[in-house]
Amino acid sequence: MTTKTRWKTDLEIAKEIKLKRIQEIAQELGLLEEEFEPYGHYKAKISLDVMKRLASKPDGKVILVTAINPTPAGEGKSTVTVGLGQALNKLGKKAIVAMREPSLGPTMGVKGGATGGGYSQVLPMDEINLHFTGDLHAITTATNALAAFIDNHIHQGNELRIDVRRIVWKRAVDLNDRALRRVIVGLGGPTQGVPREDGFDITVASEIMAVFCLAKDLTDLKERLSRMVVAYNVDKQPVTVGDLGVEGALTLLLKDAFKPNLVQTAEHTPALVHGGPFANIAHGCNSIIATKMAQKLGEYVVTEAGFGADLGAEKFLHIKARFAGIEPAAVVIVATVRALKMHGGVSKQELSVENVDALRRGLSNLQKHIETIQAFGLPFVVALNRFITDADQEIETLLSFCRDHHYPVALTEVWEKGGEGGMELAEKVLDMIEHGTNQFAPLYDLHDPLPDKIRKIAHAVYGAQAVEFSTKAQKQMAQFAEYGWDRLPVCMAKTQYSLSDDPQKLGRPTGFAITVRELKPSIGAGFIVALTGDVMTMPGLPKEPAALKMDIDERGQAIGLF
Amino acid sequence: MTTKTRWKTDLEIAKEIKLKRIQEIAQELGLLEEEFEPYGHYKAKISLDVMKRLASKPDGKVILVTAINPTPAGEGKSTVTVGLGQALNKLGKKAIVAMREPSLGPTMGVKGGATGGGYSQVLPMDEINLHFTGDLHAITTATNALAAFIDNHIHQGNELRIDVRRIVWKRAVDLNDRALRRVIVGLGGPTQGVPREDGFDITVASEIMAVFCLAKDLTDLKERLSRMVVAYNVDKQPVTVGDLGVEGALTLLLKDAFKPNLVQTAEHTPALVHGGPFANIAHGCNSIIATKMAQKLGEYVVTEAGFGADLGAEKFLHIKARFAGIEPAAVVIVATVRALKMHGGVSKQELSVENVDALRRGLSNLQKHIETIQAFGLPFVVALNRFITDADQEIETLLSFCRDHHYPVALTEVWEKGGEGGMELAEKVLDMIEHGTNQFAPLYDLHDPLPDKIRKIAHAVYGAQAVEFSTKAQKQMAQFAEYGWDRLPVCMAKTQYSLSDDPQKLGRPTGFAITVRELKPSIGAGFIVALTGDVMTMPGLPKEPAALKMDIDERGQAIGLF
Repeated sequence: MTTKTRWKTDLEIAKEIKLKRIQEIAQELGLLEEEFEPYGHYKAKISLDVMKRLASKPDGKVILVTAINPTPAGEGKSTVTVGLGQALNKLGKKAIVAMREPSLGPTMGVKGGATGGGYSQVLPMDEINLHFTGDLHAITTATNALAAFIDNHIHQGNELRIDVRRIVWKRAVDLNDRALRRVIVGLGGPTQGVPREDGFDITVASEIMAVFCLAKDLTDLKERLSRMVVAYNVDKQPVTVGDLGVEGALTLLLKDAFKPNLVQTAEHTPALVHGGPFANIAHGCNSIIATKMAQKLGEYVVTEAGFGADLGAEKFLHIKARFAGIEPAAVVIVATVRALKMHGGVSKQELSVENVDALRRGLSNLQKHIETIQAFGLPFVVALNRFITDADQEIETLLSFCRDHHYPVALTEVWEKGGEGGMELAEKVLDMIEHGTNQFAPLYDLHDPLPDKIRKIAHAVYGAQAVEFSTKAQKQMAQFAEYGWDRLPVCMAKTQYSLSDDPQKLGRPTGFAITVRELKPSIGAGFIVALTGDVMTMPGLPKEPAALKMDIDERGQAIGLF
Repeated sequence: MTTKTRWKTDLEIAKEIKLKRIQEIAQELGLLEEEFEPYGHYKAKISLDVMKRLASKPDGKVILVTAINPTPAGEGKSTVTVGLGQALNKLGKKAIVAMREPSLGPTMGVKGGATGGGYSQVLPMDEINLHFTGDLHAITTATNALAAFIDNHIHQGNELRIDVRRIVWKRAVDLNDRALRRVIVGLGGPTQGVPREDGFDITVASEIMAVFCLAKDLTDLKERLSRMVVAYNVDKQPVTVGDLGVEGALTLLLKDAFKPNLVQTAEHTPALVHGGPFANIAHGCNSIIATKMAQKLGEYVVTEAGFGADLGAEKFLHIKARFAGIEPAAVVIVATVRALKMHGGVSKQELSVENVDALRRGLSNLQKHIETIQAFGLPFVVALNRFITDADQEIETLLSFCRDHHYPVALTEVWEKGGEGGMELAEKVLDMIEHGTNQFAPLYDLHDPLPDKIRKIAHAVYGAQAVEFSTKAQKQMAQFAEYGWDRLPVCMAKTQYSLSDDPQKLGRPTGFAITVRELKPSIGAGFIVALTGDVMTMPGLPKEPAALKMDIDERGQAIGLF
């Protein structure tokens, strides 16, 4: 391994790469000239008409990239997603990457993007990480427009008899801003609206983002928006967007954002980067429309889901795949030596020290996620995403663990080597798709009562011994059955750091109970969120936000973005 | 005049027009391929590099379109601006239109766009009136990011000793939302920030919008952002963006938005639509960079300023022209029979009834604005913007008033006939540029003390007899002199409906005093706002918002936008 004074940053690497014009990428994908609109030279939006033109074309195969429980060490799931797409193209397959689009809040707050890294990133990373094509701004605007319509309705006479204490719709900004978590609005007297408690979520936590990502087409988008519950009236009956009559306006605000965004990876593999909901109170996957469009345009679609397999993959398989009618062809489970060592008890400071024992202990976390994917009946490959600090002995330990258990495994070096570093992974994934057993089935049925759905997930995916429901949650479940909401899938909001609901319990905890404290209906998205702890839907900024280092150079180019 | 069952809406007309691809418009303007980035097929952003390439090219002539004091009858200033640009092109002149970009708030709230109308509008009007190229979203985001940085600074220890009672920076949404006018943020205990009073403005009222429109280039943008005062510390000394160290991040957030937007009019005249600050607490003109770029790309630039000549033109001439070094070649003063009748005492309901006497009384308003433009030493033409309900006798009254006073006047029918309806106006404007006397000079000097600047504007532009300053305003003026802010130009915040500070006094009030109640420093923008009354910086929604009629059709196109 070469010695370097320092690694290049992702932004430095990004700037070195000569991109193809987006027209060229679009043409290579077989898009007609009228089917895409360039947004600058390297981004485009793709018309939904493509879906009609290619309706009879067979769908490409979906490869889902998931991971072990995340740690501060980082796993590189997005990087592997991009690298695998590039590697498949090197093997002569027509592969497309489908990813979430980043939120601006974390970009300004903490160092670290959501566009992959090194020679396996989607580009132009600075634009994608800043305003991109404006999708998140459109969702922010729709979220806040809806809030303004609600407050205006009340101010103008409140015909729907909305209980101002029971408005559940929150405003949004695409920023980390703790001061907006809990606010009082409508102050200043009778001409300034009706005072009430309110709060802002970060945009990716808005139900509109989840709706956006789960809608099949514009009609479905409008219907889902219409079903969103924004408040309860004085009789405790739900009040929806449809009751307010603004679903058309909200759809109009979202109509352009709803077209999937086309960009390219560092090796010119086409990438659809579209939508990006939270992976706790929402399902954490890019839009259904982008994934389905990628299936029409390519032979293979490499896509990722948020956090670890206990959250992202479970929701991909139970929510997104179910709504979209997607049957994944294979799953990639990303693990790193560093992260597994943290699961084995090593602190972040000591990660660079070789520690095979800790790694062995941490492997239990990987094993649980493998068992989960097996429970779904899906073929998989473990991707060992190599870091420069990994000791040979550590890598060998992980590889032999997989070999001993007959788990397919591939070493990847996609950050440093791009697609070339993911060839083994690509070959093994293709092999699993060809020869592996695929008996995909969900772990629960929509007709299961809500508590049963939650129990099935907790047992089969988390390895929990029991599920406890708070009194509030029990009352809510009874109430939701009355409203007819009990046949919806469940969206678990749990810490991403642990298989349990305690972020401190790393590795593979056993004998624990999951406590469901509260439920949150997302009727437009079409799921019931089960909250197992405090879920932060509006992050705060650190003492030294990343923004302090950001600037433009004399040519107007981004500096200090990453 | 033909009888029609109903007039087409602006959106219906817009949809009938076959647009040219934006590449074609850009090429006709002489832009190199690397100098523009398409945003969809009919919008583009123009690189600032154009200014360098064309640095030695002589500047095109600027024609400023202003109007009488606005009334609910509407004047059609934007429509005349577009129509005049089209007419100049018909005369073989290379003319470009430079306009403000619309805010989404009023679009969702009240019927009526800001893109001109009929056959004199900028297109695609639906996209321009919705998210356009995302400029306003970028400004909203920068405004709210700055607020988050301020609150985070206080939460993390408040090293700058900011007095939480004296934070003057407000958050923003690009919506009409009265409930956000006065809020309390930071509730919820010590981990959720520091509680304080706060408020949201509509985005166009953010100082960042004014800065954006007055900056000459990216360096100037950053310097102006850095100078913005966001709060005062416990010693009552100003705290700036530079003190917080986030001017680089804010500039980064704005760098793409800062590139002027290229679109076309209904007759394919190029239009730069860029920036749109309030015309009361800010200066109400499109960006300097767009106007200066249009001057490099065309022989004539037709541009408008907000509200009537007492606000928009005064500020264009004293603030924008001064900062930009622009000497206007001519001014167009738009008047309508309907609006002048309202100034003569007719109610909106009776506007369709012929009333020559009321029109005669209302002409005093037009005359004052003419005198103002004369005081600035500028040649002008009155544009009588014809409405279908105008009686021949009324039109003749207005025309003969102008002839009697030797005021150049032209009848325009640009809504109905496009450029063809503005030929007389175009010819007269060209004639004034060629043969009129231009002795342009501002009405006050930057070295005049603040109260003198305000008095000079009030006397010369409003016809006020006296100016009174509240005790607060007097204290502030003394304080601003200490801070070194007294050599900045003044930005008057006055009702747009009257020459006085009382919106009820139509026509040409006399013998009145203007009361300056409070001053507001906009140090980044580079002016001191003088508030003469309540200025609404966050509009509310009506009982039946326009949004209720908005939707998309089966092809995903906008419905009910206008």
